[in-house]
Amino acid sequence: MEENTYSQKLVAEVLGTAVLVFIGVGSVPATLIVGGDAPFTMAQLGMISLAFATAVIAMVYAIGHISGCQINPAITLALAATKKMPWRDVPGYIAAQVAGAVLGALAIVGVLGKKAVDVGLGIAAYGTGVGAGQAFFAEAVGTFILAFIVFGAIDRRAAGGFAGLAIGLGVFAIIIPVAPATAASINPARTLGPMITGELFDGTVHWSQLPVYLAAEVLGAVAAGVLYTALNTRRSAAAAGAAENQLAETASA
Amino acid sequence: MEENTYSQKLVAEVLGTAVLVFIGVGSVPATLIVGGDAPFTMAQLGMISLAFATAVIAMVYAIGHISGCQINPAITLALAATKKMPWRDVPGYIAAQVAGAVLGALAIVGVLGKKAVDVGLGIAAYGTGVGAGQAFFAEAVGTFILAFIVFGAIDRRAAGGFAGLAIGLGVFAIIIPVAPATAASINPARTLGPMITGELFDGTVHWSQLPVYLAAEVLGAVAAGVLYTALNTRRSAAAAGAAENQLAETASA
Amino acid sequence: MEENTYSQKLVAEVLGTAVLVFIGVGSVPATLIVGGDAPFTMAQLGMISLAFATAVIAMVYAIGHISGCQINPAITLALAATKKMPWRDVPGYIAAQVAGAVLGALAIVGVLGKKAVDVGLGIAAYGTGVGAGQAFFAEAVGTFILAFIVFGAIDRRAAGGFAGLAIGLGVFAIIIPVAPATAASINPARTLGPMITGELFDGTVHWSQLPVYLAAEVLGAVAAGVLYTALNTRRSAAAAGAAENQLAETASA
Amino acid sequence: MEENTYSQKLVAEVLGTAVLVFIGVGSVPATLIVGGDAPFTMAQLGMISLAFATAVIAMVYAIGHISGCQINPAITLALAATKKMPWRDVPGYIAAQVAGAVLGALAIVGVLGKKAVDVGLGIAAYGTGVGAGQAFFAEAVGTFILAFIVFGAIDRRAAGGFAGLAIGLGVFAIIIPVAPATAASINPARTLGPMITGELFDGTVHWSQLPVYLAAEVLGAVAAGVLYTALNTRRSAAAAGAAENQLAETASA
Repeated sequence: MEENTYSQKLVAEVLGTAVLVFIGVGSVPATLIVGGDAPFTMAQLGMISLAFATAVIAMVYAIGHISGCQINPAITLALAATKKMPWRDVPGYIAAQVAGAVLGALAIVGVLGKKAVDVGLGIAAYGTGVGAGQAFFAEAVGTFILAFIVFGAIDRRAAGGFAGLAIGLGVFAIIIPVAPATAASINPARTLGPMITGELFDGTVHWSQLPVYLAAEVLGAVAAGVLYTALNTRRSAAAAGAAENQLAETASA
Repeated sequence: MEENTYSQKLVAEVLGTAVLVFIGVGSVPATLIVGGDAPFTMAQLGMISLAFATAVIAMVYAIGHISGCQINPAITLALAATKKMPWRDVPGYIAAQVAGAVLGALAIVGVLGKKAVDVGLGIAAYGTGVGAGQAFFAEAVGTFILAFIVFGAIDRRAAGGFAGLAIGLGVFAIIIPVAPATAASINPARTLGPMITGELFDGTVHWSQLPVYLAAEVLGAVAAGVLYTALNTRRSAAAAGAAENQLAETASA
Repeated sequence: MEENTYSQKLVAEVLGTAVLVFIGVGSVPATLIVGGDAPFTMAQLGMISLAFATAVIAMVYAIGHISGCQINPAITLALAATKKMPWRDVPGYIAAQVAGAVLGALAIVGVLGKKAVDVGLGIAAYGTGVGAGQAFFAEAVGTFILAFIVFGAIDRRAAGGFAGLAIGLGVFAIIIPVAPATAASINPARTLGPMITGELFDGTVHWSQLPVYLAAEVLGAVAAGVLYTALNTRRSAAAAGAAENQLAETASA
Repeated sequence: MEENTYSQKLVAEVLGTAVLVFIGVGSVPATLIVGGDAPFTMAQLGMISLAFATAVIAMVYAIGHISGCQINPAITLALAATKKMPWRDVPGYIAAQVAGAVLGALAIVGVLGKKAVDVGLGIAAYGTGVGAGQAFFAEAVGTFILAFIVFGAIDRRAAGGFAGLAIGLGVFAIIIPVAPATAASINPARTLGPMITGELFDGTVHWSQLPVYLAAEVLGAVAAGVLYTALNTRRSAAAAGAAENQLAETASA
């Protein structure tokens, strides 16, 4: 059996996103519990970023061959928008990713206790002094870079097998400069899941920031997908010219 | 010669688990000796997690072709439970892993001195304020994720050669959020070995916690193995249907 | 389509260098904002180095198959000097890299705000007590090592696909000992881009240091390229001898 | 041309060891200059270990196809002792490695200035309260693990291309628990080179510790090589039995 069923793929996306959120988002309360609440240090941010990165890498190699390990609705939409996956698969994938994110955030509370909610449950929010415009720009840039790396690394001309490492390490890279602005969610499921779970446990949730995150993430990812596709397509005139040359060569052979 | 003998495989498992424990568990007293006893910082937890991860990666590439580099009784049981290794090989593997873990913990004392025992020898124990239920859940979730990554990464459809990286980096990822609850042992040999060695040197050992660790780890790993297998098996009805379709296509060709 | 057009390659170089500068250089103000302005700690330097490294790795796998992902004028010049790319492609590549570096530095300001300029925008400058001679030596040694790794890792005899990892991790390695002297720019575009952007925002820019950086970087890279090439070329006499031996063997066969 | 000349291999070993020492050993004074002289933190040890690891990884992919990138006399001796390289190549390799280590240590002084000598130049020495016996054991265990990983990862049955990653990450892993005892030199060239350079600049050098380091390193590496070889050799009786079975099968076919 080479291809999994659609339901099996959805289960894989649920699990993959749950692991991503449990580990990546869970590393935020973990680091606050271990390292003390304040001040937030670079070692803490570094370990959080590395937790996100290694979770992505591990899951790409664990379920990439089942569902593609998209575990991010913005990536799913960018793939559909560039005809790399059928639109009819999109709603199921996104529902699975959001359900997984809620599940992962619940597991954080199960493992670290109510304390995790008290220190914020790793819910993404703007940094000190950051406005909606800056936050939108930061999330859009971060998700643009992420999606561009995804499209490049899964290109059949890219070095085979390295996509998981490239994407995961790219996640680390993106979080470092973007985190001070928006906590670098760059993933609508990672944004929404902990918010829903936080609400269930009476945590602090900035719902008004949600539309900014979602819009920026989707826009950034789709823009990167469209750009990558354009960057690897010859204009029809050039293509026609190439075809003519080939015909000429064939004729003269 | 392509296949090693059973005894050679057992020696490899002894060595692999010894290295895992010497490095991963040994990094706990090492970091306490280097960085000062308290407060335990995120940089310390990060380096301990990275020591476990890199030890796993190095040993998978060093002995994976000899014994499979399971170096974890929970993984061994999950593989046997899903018919990926014969049950008759299990007792030897587990004995070798536990022996290796004791050996590795002894090497910690040899290299870092009695001081290592004084700071706890990296023996796994519940975090402050963590009860048996929460600890069970934390170890079960952590080992579930580990085993799921193992099963996915060794799937013949996964990117070849990357299993060691995926599993090792997965270990890093899991330790970050699970460590505050249970020190993230996620391996019965890593749990038991340092306890035995600690006892030999009159260290502090919480024996009453052992059954919780062992049960959670085995349960988590076996559950992941069963789920992964189910997730990649078509139900017989569906399989029959697919076979029929294929017959129909062949007939109409 | 296997080969991209020259314009497409230039767009890829713009993007690649923009991402490198946004992430690598941007991690400097990010770490100062997160970790506090002073004293600069090893955890901060470590995370900055890792941000540079992971940005390089991600982009090599994302655009290496489009433009070669040189994203460094010193590397471009070393490749041209050793006949690994045509000189006519060099001006466009360098212009694209510098434009990308400016763009990336602008994105830092967009994401982190004016605050990023106030803490120095990650502009490279000599360390405390470091003179021009020491700085020249440090940048030359650092860029020499980088270029030598690039030439080795893209050698067709090197392990396939690992070039991105080798080069990116090499960047991490080089930054650690070189950063205290010159911030380890080892890339003329990374040196110049943030200087131009810093000037636009009235930041502090040490323009007098620029020629030292540029000269050392180009010299180091070209020297490594020439040495690597010589190290893998047989002297003509030896080659002639080998050819003779082969002839003799063929004749006696 | 597929095979380099012996002289070219020696130049590669000089360069590889110089880079290893410049980066790995140089990261010690670098981290002391950046992070302050005392107390030595885990973040500092972590970054030093990562500098060693990434230098090894980068150089394996850069010169592995030229000279094997042994850059460690203990590894060279272990390979010769197990007939994996001819003894006649050993003296040149070791001389090249030591020369490279001196060169690399000189580059540290060039890049970081006399300050680097003042903070110890990264010369390996016993930790506080560590005696010669404990130091011998620590270096022997560390080098044993390193050599075992090398032998395993270059085995033709191991996953192709990953040897550089496995060995480099193994170096990181080993340094964490061994560093508090002996600074984890695990390489006679890395031990000796900085000592010679430190002597030239009137630094503090514990020459009496040198024989302990050298003996432990060579013993550990050769023991690992011999064990790995034995672990992958069938006893002649078993081999004969296997051959008989095969004959029987062939006859009955």
